[in-house]
Amino acid sequence: MSEYPPLTSFVFQNGLIPAIVQDASTKDVLMLAYMNGESLQKTIQSGETWFWSRSRQELWHKGATSGNTQKVVEIRYDCDADTLLVLVKPEGPACHTGEQTCFFRKLEFSNAVE
Amino acid sequence: MSEYPPLTSFVFQNGLIPAIVQDASTKDVLMLAYMNGESLQKTIQSGETWFWSRSRQELWHKGATSGNTQKVVEIRYDCDADTLLVLVKPEGPACHTGEQTCFFRKLEFSNAVE
Repeated sequence: MSEYPPLTSFVFQNGLIPAIVQDASTKDVLMLAYMNGESLQKTIQSGETWFWSRSRQELWHKGATSGNTQKVVEIRYDCDADTLLVLVKPEGPACHTGEQTCFFRKLEFSNAVE
Repeated sequence: MSEYPPLTSFVFQNGLIPAIVQDASTKDVLMLAYMNGESLQKTIQSGETWFWSRSRQELWHKGATSGNTQKVVEIRYDCDADTLLVLVKPEGPACHTGEQTCFFRKLEFSNAVE
């Protein structure tokens, strides 16, 4: 398997790179999670999203338990090569709450300057 | 000024929370940057995005130099309250390269398992 750029070109901070997951069809942002080199390799090899769980300190195949896997459509990266944007076709809700997206809540505020 | 939830409810790691910036109209993901409490307050108060520059270690009013400010349409937050999603109306390109989005490059790979 080869990829361009080589995965080592990405900036991993403390071994991790943030990955924004976006629904390739609706363009809704679904979640933000973190990948280490191994989970990025597994994502590329399997065509499904794998992350590094910071709370459990282990590799995490998204949907392994829930069945709500995410098929990878495309992986993009930013100008600094320190963030990934993973476009996916989700097999179910991204959020453990059952919501389609983890970003289901809105910050309410008035724009009035104090 | 009041907001709900109070800004102190958010999870700041090493004082920072990642903020995904998305174009409210096209739904393109434009960039990922980091906010500290003060930049989040300034974003809310001014209605334009403010971040914390990790490289320069200073508050950063997006577009202050380039003119490419981002008007805030909505701020959403995720289930763990440790990531923000800021929907904006951009006044110009988000990226310092002149591209509309910082995610203008694609990782090329074959899905073949090694």
